[in-house]
Amino acid sequence: MSEALFATLQQLLGAAHVQRSEDAAQYLTDKQGRYTGQVIAVVHPANTEEVAAVVRACVALEAPIVVQGGNTGLMAGATPDASGRAVLLLLDRMNRVRVIDTDNDTLTVEAGCILQNIQDVAREAGRLFPLSLGAEGSCTIGGNLGTNAGGTAVLRYGNTRELTLGLEVVTAEGEIWNGLRGLRKDNTGYDLRDLYVGSEGTLGIITAATLKLFPLPKAQATALLAFDELAQAVAFLSHARAGFGANLTAFELLSADCLALLREQFPEGPQPFLNASQPWFALLELSDNHGETHAREAFETVLGEAFEQSLLADALIAESLAQSEALWLLRENMSEAQKRAGRNMKHDISVPISQIVAFVAHTDALLQTHFPGVRNFTFGHLGDGNLHYNVAHPLDSTVDEHMRNYAELSLLVHDSAHAHGGSISAEHGIGQRKVGLLGRYKSPVELDLMRRIKRALDPKNLLNPGKVLEVQP
Amino acid sequence: MSEALFATLQQLLGAAHVQRSEDAAQYLTDKQGRYTGQVIAVVHPANTEEVAAVVRACVALEAPIVVQGGNTGLMAGATPDASGRAVLLLLDRMNRVRVIDTDNDTLTVEAGCILQNIQDVAREAGRLFPLSLGAEGSCTIGGNLGTNAGGTAVLRYGNTRELTLGLEVVTAEGEIWNGLRGLRKDNTGYDLRDLYVGSEGTLGIITAATLKLFPLPKAQATALLAFDELAQAVAFLSHARAGFGANLTAFELLSADCLALLREQFPEGPQPFLNASQPWFALLELSDNHGETHAREAFETVLGEAFEQSLLADALIAESLAQSEALWLLRENMSEAQKRAGRNMKHDISVPISQIVAFVAHTDALLQTHFPGVRNFTFGHLGDGNLHYNVAHPLDSTVDEHMRNYAELSLLVHDSAHAHGGSISAEHGIGQRKVGLLGRYKSPVELDLMRRIKRALDPKNLLNPGKVLEVQP
Repeated sequence: MSEALFATLQQLLGAAHVQRSEDAAQYLTDKQGRYTGQVIAVVHPANTEEVAAVVRACVALEAPIVVQGGNTGLMAGATPDASGRAVLLLLDRMNRVRVIDTDNDTLTVEAGCILQNIQDVAREAGRLFPLSLGAEGSCTIGGNLGTNAGGTAVLRYGNTRELTLGLEVVTAEGEIWNGLRGLRKDNTGYDLRDLYVGSEGTLGIITAATLKLFPLPKAQATALLAFDELAQAVAFLSHARAGFGANLTAFELLSADCLALLREQFPEGPQPFLNASQPWFALLELSDNHGETHAREAFETVLGEAFEQSLLADALIAESLAQSEALWLLRENMSEAQKRAGRNMKHDISVPISQIVAFVAHTDALLQTHFPGVRNFTFGHLGDGNLHYNVAHPLDSTVDEHMRNYAELSLLVHDSAHAHGGSISAEHGIGQRKVGLLGRYKSPVELDLMRRIKRALDPKNLLNPGKVLEVQP
Repeated sequence: MSEALFATLQQLLGAAHVQRSEDAAQYLTDKQGRYTGQVIAVVHPANTEEVAAVVRACVALEAPIVVQGGNTGLMAGATPDASGRAVLLLLDRMNRVRVIDTDNDTLTVEAGCILQNIQDVAREAGRLFPLSLGAEGSCTIGGNLGTNAGGTAVLRYGNTRELTLGLEVVTAEGEIWNGLRGLRKDNTGYDLRDLYVGSEGTLGIITAATLKLFPLPKAQATALLAFDELAQAVAFLSHARAGFGANLTAFELLSADCLALLREQFPEGPQPFLNASQPWFALLELSDNHGETHAREAFETVLGEAFEQSLLADALIAESLAQSEALWLLRENMSEAQKRAGRNMKHDISVPISQIVAFVAHTDALLQTHFPGVRNFTFGHLGDGNLHYNVAHPLDSTVDEHMRNYAELSLLVHDSAHAHGGSISAEHGIGQRKVGLLGRYKSPVELDLMRRIKRALDPKNLLNPGKVLEVQP
């Protein structure tokens, strides 16, 4: 059967675009090296019709289909299982910008486009495509859509979902739904678009999307702010939202321990607040439609008021683009700094912003009780209530010893996020890594609704099986 | 069976909260008086548990359930059919604000809350709930959610969908899904929320919602602008988006014929541009986080540039709150002005903004060919590509003669919107009035996907049957 399917796929796409597992190892292991799969074939269709034909061929032989973008996901949602039964679909040949419509402020792109290329195309047209995240140089918009990716500009522009107006999707039966609409308003039936966005390839295969563009800001201002306590940062955020409105485009938290780690791992990098005693910092970005002077004035007004109201301990305002980039480098280097310091336990949680302080205090204390000496490296998108609540090994212990407690420690963190009204996956999705956790945090009613939708749109459970939801066959 | 169900409902809710059709006529005819239904009972549950109990009682006897908010919808989506088999659910007793969380900028309200009351509660807490539309004094948030209502602030804040973070829903089986999350980021499974929003009570019954709040703008500036042609208004819009960014909070088009109609029907009302010859006007609103002076400066800069670049023929800037309110009154009086002038044919269409000019030119000409002398009253939310493309009778004909052509004329308008990449219902939904049209404009693939979802979530087709989709039992 496998050989018959392999031959059919070669016939459909041409032999050059169908690989065997042994020739395509780079696609079979997830980014973090945790999961490795086997497949009948890795296929690279040229267009939507070919994707549909591949799906039909797979359905005929009941072979599961896994779709993969830039393989940058953290939940192994795009890694096939080890059964060797699946076909892995790469959309790397589908990387065209189909339409750019500046009057409508929309862009229609194929799913295989690299995110950074889309940002560049928009900028060349005098527009902003605001989705921005660490992996932007290699992740694809298809992956961003499949996981409803977040990033650093969600505060102002929303997640990938909010940036999407229309989709083209290949269904589980290999039919093509053309929903590539460039409309801000369209109330004609159920919202299929938002169902596919974030479904991680388990309900359909997104092959193209119509995305929103925005005016390019005329100026941006950046500052690194120091806070005497986390509650002060939360209060400042509220003040900044009122003062800057939608011009507040980023508010990224970094703990003092994060700053120290950055100094240690990047001694050649920027060293702001070298002798500061504050426990929390935040990177603030203001975007302005008027210009540099105006941005600077708004910055000074709002920061000045904050100082007067004791909503701020200290501020380092970037005086140039180079200084602004240096400040952003701190945030951008956080993942690498942690990697260099050895593996740690990452938790991508969100809570209501009003619960941030309680969540951090409670969870930090809980961890010290159960795992004395573990070190928190907490940072992230405070403006969205989304923390990367990462936990490193105690200094008197080893990384390996620490990592043996991963399941138990993570459960405490996730339970705490849940107890504070939060989510166990703010922006990274469920994939296969968290699929076993959903039953703990979702009600039976919600799980049942999700399973009904899965069965309705993929009755044979062939689309990325085992991801997002455990489904009984 | 009907009597048994009536008795059960009385037992569940108390006799005072269960009405017979003859005592509840105001709920049985739609706002525009086009459809009248009959029901077994009109019920007014006090809380979500009672809603669930009503649904279970109805399911046991296979009685359909229709939910109704303020009965202000234009598509008769909340009007039961004439069979007398259904139970009509009013949530008017469920009108509590459950939680207001200003640190998180969220508000949790029950579905029966009047929209204006929610706006007021937010304002008293120093926040903005931006959903704003003509019926706000009587429509409920449950109806807004069910229809994904739009209104005048979509340009900046989005439709009801974009304002919603969490939902509480009673399912077709009478179970309660508590999805009342106040999270900006939560990627843990399928997006049930957006599926229920806009589903017009056909997939589940929304009983409460957690909504986004925003900072109250410190100042607003309003102007009425005159344009030499529609293309100029579209080009100005692009300029204004770049210049004002997210501070551009409304851009409402009015044709010269609309202004003339307003003068005629409201001779006591404002009379701007009395002797102007321009064919198109737009109401522009800028919201500002800094203050009056700043708003005024931004206004003058952007409008000044527009004059220099010939993107604008004339501008009337409101000098006071009273003048601003007078300008807004023009837009707000449009529905009433049309009503006073006699019935006309309303079309709530949207097209990509880049297609607005072509759509209007093409459709206006087409109508004159097929229905000589009909008069266009075109206005609406140009910033969202959403026009209320309304057509009045020829002056040498009568309203009644004109209205006999409704089906035929509307088909031309809808076909034209569709041919220009548009939607036949931008913000009013499908209800029962447009249910027969979906098959013309949606692909079989899309209709099939929608039907599968309907069957998955409401397998017995008891939730608002006959609305949105035609479903085979």
